[in-house]
Amino acid sequence: MSAVSSLRAAGTPPFFAVGANDLGSSARRGLLTTAHGVVETPNFMPVATVGTVKGITPAQLHDVGAQILLANAYHLALRPGVDVVEELGGLHRFMGWPGPILTDSGGYQVFSLAALRKVTEEGVEFRSHIDGAKLALRPEDVVMLQVRLGVDIMMPLDECLPAPVGRPDAERAAARTLRWACRSLAVERGDGQTLFGIVQGGVFADLRRQHAAELVALGFPGYAVGGLSVGEAIEMTREVAAATAAALPTTAPRYLMGVGRPEDLLRFVGMGFDLFDCVLPTRNGRNGMLFTWSGPVNIRLARYARDPEPVDAACDCYGCRTFSRAYLRHLAVSGEMLGPQLNSLHNLHFYLDLMRQMRAQIAAGTFLQWANDRIARLEQGGNA
Amino acid sequence: MSAVSSLRAAGTPPFFAVGANDLGSSARRGLLTTAHGVVETPNFMPVATVGTVKGITPAQLHDVGAQILLANAYHLALRPGVDVVEELGGLHRFMGWPGPILTDSGGYQVFSLAALRKVTEEGVEFRSHIDGAKLALRPEDVVMLQVRLGVDIMMPLDECLPAPVGRPDAERAAARTLRWACRSLAVERGDGQTLFGIVQGGVFADLRRQHAAELVALGFPGYAVGGLSVGEAIEMTREVAAATAAALPTTAPRYLMGVGRPEDLLRFVGMGFDLFDCVLPTRNGRNGMLFTWSGPVNIRLARYARDPEPVDAACDCYGCRTFSRAYLRHLAVSGEMLGPQLNSLHNLHFYLDLMRQMRAQIAAGTFLQWANDRIARLEQGGNA
Repeated sequence: MSAVSSLRAAGTPPFFAVGANDLGSSARRGLLTTAHGVVETPNFMPVATVGTVKGITPAQLHDVGAQILLANAYHLALRPGVDVVEELGGLHRFMGWPGPILTDSGGYQVFSLAALRKVTEEGVEFRSHIDGAKLALRPEDVVMLQVRLGVDIMMPLDECLPAPVGRPDAERAAARTLRWACRSLAVERGDGQTLFGIVQGGVFADLRRQHAAELVALGFPGYAVGGLSVGEAIEMTREVAAATAAALPTTAPRYLMGVGRPEDLLRFVGMGFDLFDCVLPTRNGRNGMLFTWSGPVNIRLARYARDPEPVDAACDCYGCRTFSRAYLRHLAVSGEMLGPQLNSLHNLHFYLDLMRQMRAQIAAGTFLQWANDRIARLEQGGNA
Repeated sequence: MSAVSSLRAAGTPPFFAVGANDLGSSARRGLLTTAHGVVETPNFMPVATVGTVKGITPAQLHDVGAQILLANAYHLALRPGVDVVEELGGLHRFMGWPGPILTDSGGYQVFSLAALRKVTEEGVEFRSHIDGAKLALRPEDVVMLQVRLGVDIMMPLDECLPAPVGRPDAERAAARTLRWACRSLAVERGDGQTLFGIVQGGVFADLRRQHAAELVALGFPGYAVGGLSVGEAIEMTREVAAATAAALPTTAPRYLMGVGRPEDLLRFVGMGFDLFDCVLPTRNGRNGMLFTWSGPVNIRLARYARDPEPVDAACDCYGCRTFSRAYLRHLAVSGEMLGPQLNSLHNLHFYLDLMRQMRAQIAAGTFLQWANDRIARLEQGGNA
């Protein structure tokens, strides 16, 4: 029985249903139904790596319209430990977020953060980036960690090579990722827990298409696209992402991992991607970089020292309703914690509002022209 | 016309009115009426030194029951500058807090933070602790800064000597503080702006009494007690504070500056003090130290790693309603910003709830016994 059919008990809604397709692009509007709630797609997942979106409470995430969060199994396994989270009632209860949660496996983190990696067909061996402890994870272990965390959507262990990757290495990594995906599928999951496949293949469109077809043959309820936006030129990212999206079934959600800027999201939704995550709203918020429809604002600049206007007069986030640019600049240059908090909240509001507007445009069949206008405004503007 | 009588236009409520006196102590319950709202006393002022309570939004301060905040004129004058705050509509609007604000003059900061101090009868000369700029402030300037900030209650410049202070120095500083208070009173204030006198006199009870009497003769609408809790033994603080409170008129509010722990507040309210400020709730919150009725909890301790209980089951703050000790410990040991935020919010809730309970006990005439019980619990408990 495939992972898709196992989720379709009689009377329950399908895991993913497309409700509307844009007329001029591959953008689609859909619903992702999980045990912890429904996610309207396309959507953006705020990043809660270790079980917290940096500086933002779950209540604020709810207020700002977040529908699903992303956490990281690797990070949580190292600290506080999956046994702790499990004992405390699972990740939703532990972090006070009752809505859907997707966890990244941590494959990317093992390959980017951990030291002394040894990759074999069996799995990965590495040292914790926190305390240097020697650890080994097989693909089966990685699924089990996520099962025990109790999350809604899980990612299998994949082999993520740092860019640039030559063709032979990309082929070997994709082949191993496929075999690991197969082993991951064999692990028993909890009720309502979904495992996505992850398409790899570097920057080689034909390899991506082939890997996608092989994963689809295994039958996943959703597909992530990994190994992009890892250092290659953005034009290359776009080309490969478009080719990969086109090779995936229209009936399953497509998740483009770790992407991106607002203008990127507009483009990738147009290619048919449904889910995104990125640290930009929170990381840039901590650095005083605020997203607006006319481009980024670097709130630390002296020009804002006496500016009585909100960051964005059209924004109804708490910060824009309450504070001037001058106050936010004062917080930033004074190193006050409230600055990163308010800036991150504004940026998350911007991203989630961007996704809301995209969904409305798709439903109206007017996405393409609107998105192109917005991309032009975003790329021309900016007073950072 | 004295500062008190100038505030008593026909039909307006008095600046301060005592509504109830405890039967067994000098504790009293009162109302402080300002242009930006009424403050029930005794009360605690969260510290917003540079125009923000660290890590807490004004909305959260409102939710947690804060009625009045403390900011610092010296800090705001250095950054962002009083002209900036004035141009942005005053401190209330600048920091998004519509309620009452009291500013400390910054005398304490000049004497503790600034370099190259030169104190003359005219005022103080010093270098900014931020950029080393050479600055001079006369008592008149310090009042003017606060007038321009638009705050409700202002403190005059006083001479704060670091403990231990010998008798001759304490006498000289008290005498100069008195002359500066007199000059401060002569500065024209805005409608509804109140200037307190500050009692100095080191640890010498008779000097404190004399200084209090001299200030009272000048006729302030309220009195602060400064230069305590600056390094002397807590028993000495108590003795001198009690003597000073008894020397001040029962008709004016008494503000004990920079104090203190929960058990201290219970004792000082019993002596007749009405207002307090202290960095402990927020500073300790940032360090993972949480206040509870059975003493402090150091949330970083390993014993909390798997503890499913809230910090305080009886507390209805957002953190205690939502998160386990295990989660708060995870945030603390992971260095996650949400930890300091939630901990600070809990501690402010604890302090403001403590003040609420004190007011209820005073109104019921049962303060003394109740306060002694609570002090005993606070001092015996604690698993830090």
